[in-house]
Amino acid sequence: MKEEKVFKDPVHQYIYVQDEVIWRLINSKEFQRLRRIRQLGTSYLTFHGAEHSRFAHSLGVYEITRNIIAQFDRNQYVDFPQEEKLLCLCAALLHDIGHGPFSHSIEKVLGFNHEDWTCRMILGDTEVNSILSSVHTDLPHKVASVISKTYPKEIVVSLVTSQLDADRMDYLLRDAYFTGVNYGKFDLERILRVLRPYKEHIVVKESGMHAIEDYLMSRYHMYWQVYFHPVTRSAELLLSQIFSRARHLYLDSFSFGFMLEPLEKLLAQQLTVQDYHLLDESLMQTVMMCWTKERDGILADLCNRFLNRRLFKYVTTESREEMEDVFGRMTRQAIDYGYDPTYYIGRDFPSNMSYDIYRPGATNNLPILLLNEHEELIEISEQSDIVRSIARMRQGKHRIYFPEEVRTIRGINNE
Amino acid sequence: MKEEKVFKDPVHQYIYVQDEVIWRLINSKEFQRLRRIRQLGTSYLTFHGAEHSRFAHSLGVYEITRNIIAQFDRNQYVDFPQEEKLLCLCAALLHDIGHGPFSHSIEKVLGFNHEDWTCRMILGDTEVNSILSSVHTDLPHKVASVISKTYPKEIVVSLVTSQLDADRMDYLLRDAYFTGVNYGKFDLERILRVLRPYKEHIVVKESGMHAIEDYLMSRYHMYWQVYFHPVTRSAELLLSQIFSRARHLYLDSFSFGFMLEPLEKLLAQQLTVQDYHLLDESLMQTVMMCWTKERDGILADLCNRFLNRRLFKYVTTESREEMEDVFGRMTRQAIDYGYDPTYYIGRDFPSNMSYDIYRPGATNNLPILLLNEHEELIEISEQSDIVRSIARMRQGKHRIYFPEEVRTIRGINNE
Amino acid sequence: MKEEKVFKDPVHQYIYVQDEVIWRLINSKEFQRLRRIRQLGTSYLTFHGAEHSRFAHSLGVYEITRNIIAQFDRNQYVDFPQEEKLLCLCAALLHDIGHGPFSHSIEKVLGFNHEDWTCRMILGDTEVNSILSSVHTDLPHKVASVISKTYPKEIVVSLVTSQLDADRMDYLLRDAYFTGVNYGKFDLERILRVLRPYKEHIVVKESGMHAIEDYLMSRYHMYWQVYFHPVTRSAELLLSQIFSRARHLYLDSFSFGFMLEPLEKLLAQQLTVQDYHLLDESLMQTVMMCWTKERDGILADLCNRFLNRRLFKYVTTESREEMEDVFGRMTRQAIDYGYDPTYYIGRDFPSNMSYDIYRPGATNNLPILLLNEHEELIEISEQSDIVRSIARMRQGKHRIYFPEEVRTIRGINNE
Amino acid sequence: MKEEKVFKDPVHQYIYVQDEVIWRLINSKEFQRLRRIRQLGTSYLTFHGAEHSRFAHSLGVYEITRNIIAQFDRNQYVDFPQEEKLLCLCAALLHDIGHGPFSHSIEKVLGFNHEDWTCRMILGDTEVNSILSSVHTDLPHKVASVISKTYPKEIVVSLVTSQLDADRMDYLLRDAYFTGVNYGKFDLERILRVLRPYKEHIVVKESGMHAIEDYLMSRYHMYWQVYFHPVTRSAELLLSQIFSRARHLYLDSFSFGFMLEPLEKLLAQQLTVQDYHLLDESLMQTVMMCWTKERDGILADLCNRFLNRRLFKYVTTESREEMEDVFGRMTRQAIDYGYDPTYYIGRDFPSNMSYDIYRPGATNNLPILLLNEHEELIEISEQSDIVRSIARMRQGKHRIYFPEEVRTIRGINNE
Repeated sequence: MKEEKVFKDPVHQYIYVQDEVIWRLINSKEFQRLRRIRQLGTSYLTFHGAEHSRFAHSLGVYEITRNIIAQFDRNQYVDFPQEEKLLCLCAALLHDIGHGPFSHSIEKVLGFNHEDWTCRMILGDTEVNSILSSVHTDLPHKVASVISKTYPKEIVVSLVTSQLDADRMDYLLRDAYFTGVNYGKFDLERILRVLRPYKEHIVVKESGMHAIEDYLMSRYHMYWQVYFHPVTRSAELLLSQIFSRARHLYLDSFSFGFMLEPLEKLLAQQLTVQDYHLLDESLMQTVMMCWTKERDGILADLCNRFLNRRLFKYVTTESREEMEDVFGRMTRQAIDYGYDPTYYIGRDFPSNMSYDIYRPGATNNLPILLLNEHEELIEISEQSDIVRSIARMRQGKHRIYFPEEVRTIRGINNE
Repeated sequence: MKEEKVFKDPVHQYIYVQDEVIWRLINSKEFQRLRRIRQLGTSYLTFHGAEHSRFAHSLGVYEITRNIIAQFDRNQYVDFPQEEKLLCLCAALLHDIGHGPFSHSIEKVLGFNHEDWTCRMILGDTEVNSILSSVHTDLPHKVASVISKTYPKEIVVSLVTSQLDADRMDYLLRDAYFTGVNYGKFDLERILRVLRPYKEHIVVKESGMHAIEDYLMSRYHMYWQVYFHPVTRSAELLLSQIFSRARHLYLDSFSFGFMLEPLEKLLAQQLTVQDYHLLDESLMQTVMMCWTKERDGILADLCNRFLNRRLFKYVTTESREEMEDVFGRMTRQAIDYGYDPTYYIGRDFPSNMSYDIYRPGATNNLPILLLNEHEELIEISEQSDIVRSIARMRQGKHRIYFPEEVRTIRGINNE
Repeated sequence: MKEEKVFKDPVHQYIYVQDEVIWRLINSKEFQRLRRIRQLGTSYLTFHGAEHSRFAHSLGVYEITRNIIAQFDRNQYVDFPQEEKLLCLCAALLHDIGHGPFSHSIEKVLGFNHEDWTCRMILGDTEVNSILSSVHTDLPHKVASVISKTYPKEIVVSLVTSQLDADRMDYLLRDAYFTGVNYGKFDLERILRVLRPYKEHIVVKESGMHAIEDYLMSRYHMYWQVYFHPVTRSAELLLSQIFSRARHLYLDSFSFGFMLEPLEKLLAQQLTVQDYHLLDESLMQTVMMCWTKERDGILADLCNRFLNRRLFKYVTTESREEMEDVFGRMTRQAIDYGYDPTYYIGRDFPSNMSYDIYRPGATNNLPILLLNEHEELIEISEQSDIVRSIARMRQGKHRIYFPEEVRTIRGINNE
Repeated sequence: MKEEKVFKDPVHQYIYVQDEVIWRLINSKEFQRLRRIRQLGTSYLTFHGAEHSRFAHSLGVYEITRNIIAQFDRNQYVDFPQEEKLLCLCAALLHDIGHGPFSHSIEKVLGFNHEDWTCRMILGDTEVNSILSSVHTDLPHKVASVISKTYPKEIVVSLVTSQLDADRMDYLLRDAYFTGVNYGKFDLERILRVLRPYKEHIVVKESGMHAIEDYLMSRYHMYWQVYFHPVTRSAELLLSQIFSRARHLYLDSFSFGFMLEPLEKLLAQQLTVQDYHLLDESLMQTVMMCWTKERDGILADLCNRFLNRRLFKYVTTESREEMEDVFGRMTRQAIDYGYDPTYYIGRDFPSNMSYDIYRPGATNNLPILLLNEHEELIEISEQSDIVRSIARMRQGKHRIYFPEEVRTIRGINNE
């Protein structure tokens, strides 16, 4: 490119595009589609600022990756293969390209997987594929294999996907920015400064350990304050009930008053790459809007609740036993009220490993390694009390969800 | 309310709800609909962070208004009628409730007006209306009259709508935050501190003049850097061409492959309050997605361009004459290329008065008044060189928009 | 006061003064003296932004206290005695008034205690005393007893001094701001929102637990990144060696080439309140500047090192045994080099309890209590894994300090 | 250097040192002395956060310069002589090294000039000189000539000193940060992106004009809100009266109760480079503290006022005539009160050209030039209404300063 181009970004200030191929990928219609998929699914119903898109996040992941590699280059670290720079940048940019609308909420119900779709988008008959192929016929496969972690060089994979990768770093900062929650903030520049390529790994200079602790604490807080927020989970539950009901009706040959082709193929689990391109969150919201008038009372009612934000309420229980008990009582109350408990009573047990300690033999995430002054590698939880204590915590909470009116039958109190 | 409730907001940190009626208004379906209308229309195609909604902005306007009134109360300024506090808060919260999808781009083409609709939503058969009526049968009318500036007390009106109102203060800060542009930032707390109710006006202590200069400069910069950004305007042009074509086809009894009821009524200019509720930006985007397959080549092509962000390019001309000349040449080139210039060539002359000096006799915006230590009121442009110089500037630029391929016929160079 | 007055503050934006007595206290010469005492002692030699004064910090503590009490008032919590508001504000403002120059570094060496001096300043013949007395003859004693934790009402004491007090909240935010370190940031507004007066305590609503975890993590990071930074500790060591040498010389009747009266009294441990007023960091720096020309080689050399930032280097040892060993070897090397090890070799073992778990019977800091929905009080470490894990950590590191040239004799390597 | 070193900086996050000579210059005792000189003189008496030093500012100027040159290098702009990079960095770092204590307030009174001293420090017998000489015997002279604007290449000079130089950019951002005033903030990264070396100039891409307008407005606001703040000017006046009195007494052979050698030489105007090194703000404050006990009543009283912040009050007058009138009356009142008006009545007329339009033939600051797409250079005020209007404004205000007690004699009211 004659001159670098920039995007104004609220998180990184500017995103610098220096390669023609990156510029063309951003302008491809598959990448532009990410503008129509929210980064945080239903979180906007809890945090009204959280309307940011996967388009913005993907640019951010690209920018962090670009910065890391530039720092490696500037300091002339020989352990990083600079010839794979473009591969890394493409993989960083495209890693989320297969995300569908509200995918975390509905992919299980409708039987698709956004990671598979990312590979299908890269390898299929798409603009993205032809742009990558124009650089080198091998490039689409390489990019896909980095994203699916099968690329042979661990150092390349771990830049894009590990416990301290550009993806996680961008989403924590970005989600914190757009929700307005402060917890997600950590010192990105400091972390970038202490990363080193070392043999086959991306490692952390030991003196940077506190910065990593802070980053892992940010993750922990974001999980409990934002990602697992009970109101957000309630909206996700509603979404999955809506599409579970729709699929049930579809398999039952129900004649929908309103249907759109890509959605029908989604329900039929027969999506092509071209259909997938048309699936976005606007389409899903429009469908739900139209379904508020369907003859099926359950479907219409659930859609109404979602659109007008009349979400299910919840109770939190301390133990599995108490959960089973409350769930049973709620189910009976729902039936008394005339509701089908399959769609009207839900349960949730969010849990998270903020950091996944490496255990030999187990199929683990790549661990975070410290490089000490004697050039030894140490898994971070061996050195840091904080990380060890975060790693131990699972802290799952059992929650039961139900329509507000059900609660009033017999007194269950909580919120 | 037993205890105040809060919303986490990235701009104001927290938004405090202390009145039951405000809480219920926020939860009404008309207010929730604002979640599906972007604050900045097509700006997200230029600034990828600008996905924030009118829901968020409306909460912000409410919060600033609440703060101003609380300060007046704390300092026991007698010139402000505290008994009208709730009226002000409701008007602040609801002032944008009639905004339709992409309204700035398409309301002229489709003949509706968001300010009228705001009043229709407040006065019609809506949840908002019944909530307000439950406080006092008069309240809906009062709220509507404050918003339409016909309420008899200027001091109440000017809090909600003037050149230094809660609306402008929130949108500058919020749009700056979400686009990532710094120019829109000004010292809100300082401005709140220097506002005073004085007789029938909200005025500014003279010592706060520099803070107001800074606020007006922010506005000036936001207009030229964000609101009038040529790429955003290009997308707006495309939208208005799409709906202008659709209306043309509709009047021509074209049989659309895809149509939705609220949109049909919009094209027919026969919307009811209930239809209007269903109109949101998801619906518009889904319609455009489906229209990419319409038989009408112009409609299909324009929709394709919008969705995949293949926007028109532009040239800027210095004078009206040059503009006419370029416009004529472009029109001829478009025809040569086989395009209908009505839909493929556009022109634009954005211009703005960052501050509108008060002139007796003219129908003006309410001026900004300084209160000096001798208790005299001075219109700010009399005192401030900066304001006078901003007020003089109109700085309009003529731009011609066209598809990129048209330019290449005969060399017009620019961007 | 006719109208509230404000100070522009980078941390809290504005500091609001609403009581005449607070305004007069701020303008007293004892409070103005705090402008000449840095908040962070020698940290400016590590973090060049850390030049902020105890004057700024004291205003900040006052402001946070004012905010907490205002929130209690707004929500009409009856458990807080609003009639003691002014007492709280005065105690918050004046709690550091007895701090001397570099007091953390030198008070042990010179045998004074800044907490005692705070009481002496409040109770002695000072402007502060006469301002407080003019409100009520008892007020000076009350203020002093709140600061020294002997005031009978725990709720008043704990606002000013506890593990979650206005003092700690201000210094973490302020020190983070001025050093530029991000770790110290936490969501102050959120914490203020979840504080409640409850019986005799200031407690935290259980739903605010994560905010407290974040605050305690901030403290932890600030201790290890800033307060215990080895370069800062090196400078503190140098200061204490300088004044230890000066006191030794003084007791030895050394005839100083340069001496100032308040310093002489300090060395003689005969300071009056009037002398103390003259002691500030300018005076100490000027004295050290002049002492670079003293005949005593040790004193002159140490002063030179401090002023021109030729600080001692350090090694870190893992265990007490290794520390003893290194210390012994270093001592011998210093002697070989011709240095008196009393002044040229130092050791340091900083350690901190980021949170001090309450143990019945032990003399503890007041614990942080959560108030759950059943109106039960729970000590936070019972509920939070994070807090428990922070509380366990002491993480002290042994460090040996020495002049760089000493190291080169026999190879000890490290930094 | 083996590995780049960093300083944590609140304004630029990190300051990167990549050259051994820069590292050594920072550690020289002349550069370390800048820690003891405040960047904003007496402003800390108005804005309590403004305690930051010239040390911090000088690092910031260096960092911005480093960034500009790195960008030129990255984009391979041939018009910038990369071989002069080190010269630019040294000049940027050292440009303020000759600043004395409170130099803006007292250098006129005591007849010295900080710019001359900067050259004397660089060319004299100093550590800085020997470090520079060790690179090349010519380097000290070159650095001094860049700073004094006599170096033959304009492009090198203008990077360090022009109307859009690294010096101004750093101080606006830094002073805004430490005072807490928002006005000084502008988008540094944007400005750095639009700077271009072009022939003999550093110019601005035309598309960056709005960013420059914003920067110039920041400057304008900082002048009127911070640098010319009447309380700061009052403190400066007091300082200059103190040293004017001291010099008068010195010339009169007054026998000072307290005197220090470097100060005596300053009063005698016989400073050497070695004396100058000892002059810092600690010394000045200590001297004033001791002088509160001098036999000369005027000197003692003025020093007391400064230390305890009992500053002179002021009135602002609209015209020169009114000023003369008030000044005359105040003078007579002071005499009536028993004060010597030479020391007790002051006047001030701060004025500033926020941007200095280039006029051929006049001795001007280097203008800011825009580079348009036709590769033409345009002086910015020709293009921008805002800049033209800022450039026209001088807006000086006449102020008279006097002790508060004088006002009460006959009623002059104001503040």
